[in-house]
Formats: sequence, C-alpha cells, structure tokens
Amino acid sequence: MIPEITQKLLAAKKAKGISFADLEKILGRDEVWIAAVIYRQASASEEEAKKLIEALGLGGIYVQELTEPSVKGLGPVVPTDPLIYRFYEIMQVYGMPIKEVIHEKFGDGIMSAIDFTLDVEKEEDPKGDRVKVIMNGKFLPYKKW
Amino acid sequence: MIPEITQKLLAAKKAKGISFADLEKILGRDEVWIAAVIYRQASASEEEAKKLIEALGLGGIYVQELTEPSVKGLGPVVPTDPLIYRFYEIMQVYGMPIKEVIHEKFGDGIMSAIDFTLDVEKEEDPKGDRVKVIMNGKFLPYKKW
Amino acid sequence: MIPEITQKLLAAKKAKGISFADLEKILGRDEVWIAAVIYRQASASEEEAKKLIEALGLGGIYVQELTEPSVKGLGPVVPTDPLIYRFYEIMQVYGMPIKEVIHEKFGDGIMSAIDFTLDVEKEEDPKGDRVKVIMNGKFLPYKKW
Amino acid sequence: MIPEITQKLLAAKKAKGISFADLEKILGRDEVWIAAVIYRQASASEEEAKKLIEALGLGGIYVQELTEPSVKGLGPVVPTDPLIYRFYEIMQVYGMPIKEVIHEKFGDGIMSAIDFTLDVEKEEDPKGDRVKVIMNGKFLPYKKW
Amino acid sequence: MIPEITQKLLAAKKAKGISFADLEKILGRDEVWIAAVIYRQASASEEEAKKLIEALGLGGIYVQELTEPSVKGLGPVVPTDPLIYRFYEIMQVYGMPIKEVIHEKFGDGIMSAIDFTLDVEKEEDPKGDRVKVIMNGKFLPYKKW
Amino acid sequence: MIPEITQKLLAAKKAKGISFADLEKILGRDEVWIAAVIYRQASASEEEAKKLIEALGLGGIYVQELTEPSVKGLGPVVPTDPLIYRFYEIMQVYGMPIKEVIHEKFGDGIMSAIDFTLDVEKEEDPKGDRVKVIMNGKFLPYKKW
Amino acid sequence: MIPEITQKLLAAKKAKGISFADLEKILGRDEVWIAAVIYRQASASEEEAKKLIEALGLGGIYVQELTEPSVKGLGPVVPTDPLIYRFYEIMQVYGMPIKEVIHEKFGDGIMSAIDFTLDVEKEEDPKGDRVKVIMNGKFLPYKKW
Amino acid sequence: MIPEITQKLLAAKKAKGISFADLEKILGRDEVWIAAVIYRQASASEEEAKKLIEALGLGGIYVQELTEPSVKGLGPVVPTDPLIYRFYEIMQVYGMPIKEVIHEKFGDGIMSAIDFTLDVEKEEDPKGDRVKVIMNGKFLPYKKW
Amino acid sequence: MIPEITQKLLAAKKAKGISFADLEKILGRDEVWIAAVIYRQASASEEEAKKLIEALGLGGIYVQELTEPSVKGLGPVVPTDPLIYRFYEIMQVYGMPIKEVIHEKFGDGIMSAIDFTLDVEKEEDPKGDRVKVIMNGKFLPYKKW
Amino acid sequence: MIPEITQKLLAAKKAKGISFADLEKILGRDEVWIAAVIYRQASASEEEAKKLIEALGLGGIYVQELTEPSVKGLGPVVPTDPLIYRFYEIMQVYGMPIKEVIHEKFGDGIMSAIDFTLDVEKEEDPKGDRVKVIMNGKFLPYKKW
Repeated sequence: MIPEITQKLLAAKKAKGISFADLEKILGRDEVWIAAVIYRQASASEEEAKKLIEALGLGGIYVQELTEPSVKGLGPVVPTDPLIYRFYEIMQVYGMPIKEVIHEKFGDGIMSAIDFTLDVEKEEDPKGDRVKVIMNGKFLPYKKW
Repeated sequence: MIPEITQKLLAAKKAKGISFADLEKILGRDEVWIAAVIYRQASASEEEAKKLIEALGLGGIYVQELTEPSVKGLGPVVPTDPLIYRFYEIMQVYGMPIKEVIHEKFGDGIMSAIDFTLDVEKEEDPKGDRVKVIMNGKFLPYKKW
Repeated sequence: MIPEITQKLLAAKKAKGISFADLEKILGRDEVWIAAVIYRQASASEEEAKKLIEALGLGGIYVQELTEPSVKGLGPVVPTDPLIYRFYEIMQVYGMPIKEVIHEKFGDGIMSAIDFTLDVEKEEDPKGDRVKVIMNGKFLPYKKW
Repeated sequence: MIPEITQKLLAAKKAKGISFADLEKILGRDEVWIAAVIYRQASASEEEAKKLIEALGLGGIYVQELTEPSVKGLGPVVPTDPLIYRFYEIMQVYGMPIKEVIHEKFGDGIMSAIDFTLDVEKEEDPKGDRVKVIMNGKFLPYKKW
Repeated sequence: MIPEITQKLLAAKKAKGISFADLEKILGRDEVWIAAVIYRQASASEEEAKKLIEALGLGGIYVQELTEPSVKGLGPVVPTDPLIYRFYEIMQVYGMPIKEVIHEKFGDGIMSAIDFTLDVEKEEDPKGDRVKVIMNGKFLPYKKW
Repeated sequence: MIPEITQKLLAAKKAKGISFADLEKILGRDEVWIAAVIYRQASASEEEAKKLIEALGLGGIYVQELTEPSVKGLGPVVPTDPLIYRFYEIMQVYGMPIKEVIHEKFGDGIMSAIDFTLDVEKEEDPKGDRVKVIMNGKFLPYKKW
Repeated sequence: MIPEITQKLLAAKKAKGISFADLEKILGRDEVWIAAVIYRQASASEEEAKKLIEALGLGGIYVQELTEPSVKGLGPVVPTDPLIYRFYEIMQVYGMPIKEVIHEKFGDGIMSAIDFTLDVEKEEDPKGDRVKVIMNGKFLPYKKW
Repeated sequence: MIPEITQKLLAAKKAKGISFADLEKILGRDEVWIAAVIYRQASASEEEAKKLIEALGLGGIYVQELTEPSVKGLGPVVPTDPLIYRFYEIMQVYGMPIKEVIHEKFGDGIMSAIDFTLDVEKEEDPKGDRVKVIMNGKFLPYKKW
Repeated sequence: MIPEITQKLLAAKKAKGISFADLEKILGRDEVWIAAVIYRQASASEEEAKKLIEALGLGGIYVQELTEPSVKGLGPVVPTDPLIYRFYEIMQVYGMPIKEVIHEKFGDGIMSAIDFTLDVEKEEDPKGDRVKVIMNGKFLPYKKW
Repeated sequence: MIPEITQKLLAAKKAKGISFADLEKILGRDEVWIAAVIYRQASASEEEAKKLIEALGLGGIYVQELTEPSVKGLGPVVPTDPLIYRFYEIMQVYGMPIKEVIHEKFGDGIMSAIDFTLDVEKEEDPKGDRVKVIMNGKFLPYKKW
C-alpha cells in the first residue's frame, strides 16, 4: 500500500530526527502538503524536491520522482485504520447536512478538492487537546451550457 | 435514501423561506448541526426540537422523533454525488498525510468524530469565493491496558 | 432508479412530440444540459425551469423542484446498460493514457467535471454515422500551500 | 497496476526528453493512441512498434510485446485518482442524459468504444486553460433477428 | 427485478397458451429476440410491437413502451440463478481461451454484442437432449488513429 | 492473473510460430479446448499433454501439471477487458430471455457448463467478418426427490 | 427477500399446524424439496402443486405459480443469518479439501447441484442432537472436445 | 491463494503416488480432514503431523506448522471454481429451505461447523457415479440469558 | 432495514415509558436479549412473548411472530452507524490478537456466538462513564474425524 | 496479510516457549494488548518495546518499529476465519439491540474503541469451558455545537 519511495523518505526523516514542522520551515510549504509529497499524493517543483531530499540527508536520485504527477488515492474502498476511518464516517454522517448548507450559501456546485488547502492544528485544551482540520477549497459553481 | 421526516422538514423550511442561518439564531446552535438534526444524524433536546419545529411552522408531532438517537450514515459505500464525493477523495488522497502529521503532533490516537464540531464558512474572494470547512475533534490517545 | 419527476417530464415530452433539439431552441441551452435537468443532475434557474415546464405542457408544480441542487449520480457502481457501460470502458481502457497526455500538456491537475460542458453531435458517414462527444472542462492545477 | 513494459518505456521517454507530441509526429498516430500502446491498451503494427521503440532509444526486445492484443482495463472498480475519477463522475452524472440524447438522434444502439478515436486538446483561455476531450465512435444500431 | 410490463406480458402469454415459437412465426423474428423485447432488453418497431401485443390478446397501451430504447441489464453483479450463472461461469472459465483464439483468427478487436444475434436450439440426443446456443457477432477491429 | 505455465506455453507457441488451428490437427481436439488446457482451465490426458508439449518444442516438465484438475476461473468479478466483457454483457442483457426460452423448450433445469463444448468460428462477410460462438451443453433437468 | 407466495404458504402451514414431515407423507417427496418448492427454488408438477395447496387448506390460485421455473437464489452475497452462514463457512474452509478428494476419487469434474438431492436428518445424541445433511449429486466429468 | 506448505505437501504426495485413502489408513483420520490439514484449515496433533509428514517422505520441518491453529478460509467472496461454486449455489438455492426444516426439527439454533464432520463418498451408479457429501454437525440451540 | 414489528414494539415501549431494565425484571431475561427479541434476532417462548407483549400494552397478535426463528443479521456489510461500526473496528483491529490469545488458552477452536450471552453495563466514572460489554461464549474445539 | 515483524516475533515466541500470560507478567500489560503490539495494532513505549524484544530473545532492531503508530486493521471486509467471523456475526445479530440498550442507559453517543480495553478470560465449566471477552470503552456523548 505504501510506495517504496515513501518508506525510504519516512525512514530517513526518522533517522534525521526531523519533524514535519521543521520541513515546513525549510520548504516554506505546509506540513500536510509536504507529507502529501512524501506519500506521492502531490508533486513538488524541482526546487522543492531538492530542498526536501537534502533536508532528509538523501541523494538526488529521488528528486525527479517527487516532481511527477502520480496516481493518487491510497487505500481500500472503506479504510480500516481508525484515524482515517473517522474522516469516512464524517462524510457518511455529515455529508448531506454539509451539502445542504453549502448549497444554501453558494448555490449548486461543489468545494474543489484541487484548488484546495488543508491544515492540521493542535488546539491545547485542559480537558484534552483537540485536532483542528481546516479545509479550504474554491467553490466551483456548475457551469450551464 | 432521505428519511421522510427530513423531506417534510426541508419542504417546510423552503415554504417558510427560512435559512439555516436563521435557524442558527433561533436555536443558538450551528447551522450544520441543525441540518444534521433535520437529516436525523444528530438528536436534539426536546426544547431544541420544539424550537425547530415551531420555526418551520409545523405541528408538534415531529418533536419526539427528533430527540431520538438515530441509525446514522446516509449513503452508498462510495458516494456518487460530486459535492459529497470530494470529501471521500480528500480522505483517499490526504488520509495518510494527515495521519502522519497528527501522529507527529499528538502521538498514537485519533481525532474523535463524536466529541466533534464542524463549521462551514463562506470566504469571499474576488477570484472565486471559497468554502471553508473547519473540523474540530478531541484527540483521543490509545489507552494501554 | 429514475426519479418520478423525470418519468413525468419524459412522458410529457413524448406526448407533446417535442425533441431535445426543440427544447434547445426554446431554452437557449444545450440539449444534454436540458436532459440533465430533466434527470435532476443539473439545476435550472426559475426562468429556465418555467420555459421547460411550459414547453412540455405541464403545470407549474414542477418548477421549484427543477431549480434545486439535487443528489447527483444515477446508477449502480458498474453500469449494466451497454450504452452507458461504454463510457465506463473508455475510462478503464484510456484513463491512464489520457492522464499521461493531460499531465504532459498541462502539468499536475485535473479536468473539471463542474466547470464543464458536454456536447453530443451526429456525424453523418456513409460507412455508418458516428457519435461525437465533446467534453470541455477547465484545467484545475493542484494548488500548493 | 502499471505493467513493467509501461514503466520501462515511460522511463526511457523521460530520459530522452521526448514528448507525446513528438511521438505523434514520428509515428503519424495520435498521442493518446500512442500512450495507449505504451500502457498496453492498444496494439501496434510491427512497423509502428519499431518506430516507437527506436524513438525511445531502446532495443528491439519490446517490439513484439507491443504488437500483441493485451488484456485491457487498468484499474480498480471505482478509480481513486482524481483525474481519472472525473470521467467516472461524468458517466454517473451525465450517463442517462447522454443516453436519452443519443437515442433521440440515432435510435436504439450504442456508441462504439472500439471503432472509436479519442483526442485531447488544450484550449487556451485567459480565465484558465481548458481540456477538450473529443470522443468519436461509430453508432452501432441494435441488430434485430 | 422484473419490470411490470414484463410480468403483464408473460402472464398474458401464459393465459393465451401461446409459445415463443408461435410468436416467432407471427412476428417473423427469433424467439430469443422476442423474449428480449418482452424483458425490455430490446426495442421493437411499432408494427412489431402491435403484432406482439395483439398476439398476447392485450390492448394497445403497451405498444409505445415496447418501442422505446430501455435501460438494459437485468440482474445482480454475479447472478444467483443457476441457469444464468452457467453463462457467467463460461465467461470465467473460457473467457481467456476464447480471447486467444479470436485474436489469432481476427487480430485485436472484439465480437460485437450489438451487431449480434443469439439462437437457442434443442438438439435431441438419446443420452439427454442438449441446449445449443449460437452467438453471432460482427468482429470489430480496434480502430487506430 | 495469468499462470506462469500459461505464459511459458504461449511464448513457446509464438516462438514456434504455431497456431491453435495447427494444434487442433496435432491433438485431434478443438482449438478452444486446447487454449483452455494452456490457460489451466481444462486438464489433458498424459498423451494429450505430451503431444502438446512436444508440438510447442518444450521439455516434458510441464506434462504432469497439464493433466491435473486446476482451480478454475480466471478473472475479476466484472471483467474489464472489452472482448471478455461482451460475454458478461450478453449474460446481463440476454440472460433472462434465454432462461425463458430454455424453460419453454426443456422445462426446469439448466444447460450444463461441464458436459459442454464451445467452438469459435470465423464467418467471412463482405460487410465485416463475423465471430460465431457455438455453445453446446447437455440439458440437466432438476431432479426431484 | 422472501417472495409473497412463500409467506402466504408458510402462514397457512403454521395455521394448519402441519409439519414438513406431514407434507412429505402427503406428497411422497422429501421435506427439503417441498420447502424448496414453497420458497420457489424448485418447481412442482401440477399434481404435486395441487396436493400441496390442498394440504395447506388454500385455494387453487397458487397452483400454477408453483409449477413455474423460478429465478433462483435467495440472498445476499455473503449470508448474515448464522444458520445459513455456516454453509458458506464450510465452503470457505473445506472447499479446497473437498475438491482435492473428489478429484482423486472421480477425476476432473464436479458434483452436480441439479441432478442432486439433499436430506436433513436428526441424529439423536445424549451429548446433544446432531444435524445430518446428506448431499447426493451426480458426478459430471468435464467433456473434452 | 494456496499456501506454500500445501503446495509442498501435495507435490510430495503426488511424487510418492500416495492417495488420501492411503493416508486415511495411516493416520486413522478421515481423508477430508487430512486434506484440510494439508490445506492448513485444520490443525493436527504432533503425532498426527509426524505420521503425515513421514508418509509423504518429507523431513520434520513441517511438523510444527501443521499443529498450529491457522487463519482459515481459502478463497474469494464468491468462488469461481465450478466444483466449489456448486456448494455456494446449494447455499443460495437451498439455504432457506434447509433453515425451515432444521428449525422445525430442532427449534431455533444452528448446525455447528466446528463440532462437525464431513465425508465424501463415491456411489457407483450405472447411469453415472454419484458424489455423496455427508455433513454432520452438532445442533446448537440459541442460549437465552 | 428495521422490521415493522420492531418499529411497532419500540413505539409502544416509548409510549408506555417502560425501559429495557423494567422489561428485564418482568421477563426475568437480560435486557440485551429482550432487545434482540424485539429486533427479531432472537426467538422467545410463547410465555415470554406474551409477557413482553402485555408489558408493552399491545394485543396478542404479535405473540406468535416473536416465537419464530427469524432470518438474522441486521445490516449492511460494513455498518455506517458509528456506534455499531466501533464493534466492526474492534474486530478489524483486535481480531487477530484475540485469536492468538484464545488459541493459546484453549487450543484450536472458536468462541460460540450461539451458546453465548452478552451483557451491557454502565460503569460510572468521574472522568466519564464507561460502557462495559461482556461476551460469554462456550469454547468449541474443532472436532477431528 | 500478517506483517513480517509479526511473523518474526511470533516465531521467536514459539521458539522461546513463552506464553502471552508470561509476557503479561514481564511487561505489566494485558496479554491482548501485547498481542496487539505484536500484530502492529497498538504502539508500545520504547521501554515496553525493549522489554518485549528482550523477553523474546531478539535483538534491538525491532524496538523502534514497535513504537510507531501503525496503519491499523488486519483483514478482508468480511473475515473468513471462523473465530474472527463470530465477532462479525455478533455485530450483525446483536448490533442494533446493543445500540438500543446503550442509548437507553447513556443517551446518544458511542462506546469508544480508542479509550478502550479488552480482556479475554477462560471460565472453566464442566459442560465445556467458556470464553469471556470483556470490552470496556469510555462512553462518548455526541457533542452539540
């Protein structure tokens, strides 16, 4: 399931003791996007790829591969991993309510998953820290023709 | 697929010309949560249900049903509706990168989809308005025993 | 599978002896888009809906429904109808080659299925007429963040 | 998922810095068809295969394999790659409307996916370039017997 | 699973005590094709539909429906009925061998299932009668472009 | 998907430049059955296996394997290869009509796919050659007990 | 899932207080076969159907339906009912071992599920009664051609 | 699909020219159970495993593995092999009738597939030999609590 | 999904304001088992059914139905309801570890789901109450034969 | 299906002749949790991993891997192994009754599978030992917002 290059890069990252937050500073890109590049779900520019490979202490052989548009999508139809499943569950439970609200606010169309950013933040809370996931996608109205 | 009570309530909402934003003010609850109650994906208190039913100009016969914990999950295994599918796609494409980042920030565990809130906001933008979806769930660390 | 309103409108269209080409002239919209409205896969403006309903000789009760954003996607996971299946087959057989060519021409991103038009034309040919399907979608480059 | 010969040929193509448009000129065949040969979804004549292999700077060992009718179809039942998925979505959303229009124009039958061509064109547009996909298949009327 | 019109026509056929072989003589069409019309898997001309409806002793209300191109494909993904399943099994077991032989005899292409006829014959045999199914489809070579 | 022995035998067959029709003469068995033996969907006698292996110019190491009853069935639940898919489509579209006709001619029971033969013939036709597939299976009436 | 006629007959059977063992004596057929007729998985002769309907105290309107070859197969792909699932499990766990033993005893071929009987017996046992299921099917050797 | 140890043991059995019936005499266990041990669907005692390994002329390295409880279940959701499929078909067609008869004879509960034996016998018959499969499982009544 | 009788009984239970704990006292059976009877997943004796129906203030017409062995299993292959899904997740995540531990403690065999009880208890906890689910099933060792 | 590290650790455990109960004493953690760590369904602290690796007589190379949050979920959508399937069956049969009882006792929410423990106990019983599985998860009430 996990591409070989991903395993290599994650192993190097662990060996280097470098965090995604560190990489964020080095590349000037968000840590989720960087993780997506490592998982071959996003493609980097040559310059970004070089910075990343260098930061991980690896040779340049991986650079080109990281710049290529990949075949995206990582998993089984319904994910079994509990962390990832929760996002499937959110879609099952809140998909229709979100659809209603978006249509009311924007009309008929969708939130783009391409012209799109996603941030993960840690919200400290004495009753238990919270994960904040912020998705931001361009609204695309259905074109009529 | 869509429960009868949902169809009744949405029709009444349309007839009344009332928006989710209006309902938000009346109930003091977020519009997404209210849409989830209407779709029977969340259960209201009796007071909340009464306010909602009254706002929609309907009789009390729906109140009790809205307070009951329902069988949740609305759709087919892979959604065909493009708006909802994009959330499935985000899970397929960004699921593993998010997992990496959450584990790095929080350790082994998940973002709760129960102790959880979800907001939909409209971000105006001259290049095309944007949909902002903010998920906020308690981090639940795996218990050891 | 086919929504009730669709069946009603198609029956009225047959009774009236009106073609999609006729409707194209009346509405000033493409026949495929009009067929999509009838199948509740696209939503019309109130004015468009009124023209359509009137052209079909029906009363106004259907107007509002045709203006609402619907739950889209019509069929089983793999279509059994031979005409529709051929489009599934084209995706199975030519999906990856198309992907290569689009990435080479445009970079990493997708063809939008929302900012999108689709025309069906008849190309007369003495060896057997041909169906021409022209898809035209905005290229959406992956946003980096 | 991607056959070994495909990986070899794509790697050679990248190393050579040759584009599908270049190959189109060399072979006198459309770039999508050439990409389909490389992905083993179409079979070339011996002459075409030789030209292609030569253009990619490879030895003749691949020639014969490229001339053989292959087992076609590249992917999972529902594709996860966003670019390819959009074609699945188009089939889900516009399949029935297209069916209606084709039947009205041609009668009962299908568009062939075998006596068929597919072009991908880039349409420059200041508001964002557009992808144009032109499918052209012979109409096959159902034979009665 | 079985459309209402099919049930009506089969009931009338039974009540009339008329066989498919009888209908073959009346319509001048093969019995399998007639059964396909009754199951709404093929569309008849108005004249054929009238003859069929009359032969079954029914009123003209069904004529128009029988002339319309239908949504084809009758069953579950893998059929459970043993008679129909055997055809699925034949495809599973002999699909690849047939593919090899057809490619050797004809080159790369397929047997059309549209420009296609199918006969069922009874072959009497003292060791047990035999079912003969004769499929005859135009060979469609893959077009290059 | 394709067993190793099958790949070896098909490669030898290609290297030898021998056709299924040639093998038919050598073994005194139909070419489809021979292709089925090569794909390990049928088992040969030792004598047949020897003749086949010898004709392909291979050593005797494959003989025993070809005589063993194999685990049959070659592909995915719904085939993606267009040639094989057409047989799936025929079952989806004509399965119920065939069932009606067989029951009328023979009573309740099935066509055996075991006491069964299958021939593929080329029918030359100026409008395009045709593929003829003749299936011949013993009718098995349901036993009562 | 359960056909209407089945529900009617089972209700009548319960109302009459008649057992399958009683029906076995009246019809001179095995109780499992009779249950299969009631579930429309087997078809009775007119005489058998009359005896059955009479024994259940019902009018003749059901007779004809019971004589017709039905669309067989009762359930979901993997059964959820524990009693029926155990037969699925036996196939999963012992399918290959049974296959080996049958091939060794009989050669390449199958046990017919059509020329086939199935008995259910109660074996009393002080440690807990046992269910004995005896399947008896004709061995069908693969025909060569 | 078939575990490596199974392939090794079956090859040794073939090389030795020893039958399941021979192994039955040597181990004092039924041949189906022995085949199940070889397919790693049942676990043997150390003594049984030693006898089996010795009878097959192999060294002791396999003994321990044969004594371990394995992950059971051998195949795809719906089997494609015709011999194994027939057992799936029996479950689809006769599952509900068997359920009715068992409940009538025993009450609510199931036939155990664990406290269970399965024999395969050859019944010689001039009209064609028959396969007899005898399943014998403890009836387990549902416990109430 | 939910049988009609279940809906009737749950509505009556709600109208009566009676809890499962109350029913536990009246019937002398565990509340989970009683809920299983109401959902037609377990069958009651006539006496138990009468007590239950009476406690819910309903007439006797439901008694017989509650005593019948039903077709069990309530839902989709993978449940979408979050509460029920967590049990699916537990099986996915802890299934193999539990299997290892049970085999070590008991040998090869299974925990019966028929000779089985299941209790749900509320464990009060200042940090948040806890749900305790206690399953107790007879160990069934695999029989050898 | 089973990760390589799991196979290594289980082999070492067998070679050492050490039980899960022994490991429970050494690590001060429950045996099911330890089995979950070995199957990479739970992550250990470095200290726990070291103790475990040492107890199994292995070198430190496995320590780091055991501390990493893994991709969880071990098997096919519906498990075929009988021991694991019983837990799937319990969810199918008792899922809705448990849901009713939990909602009555706790309100709308779920039992956490993360803040969760699971014990397996052996209950000796002269009529056959029993497996006791005790699940204990925090009740998570649905948050309103």
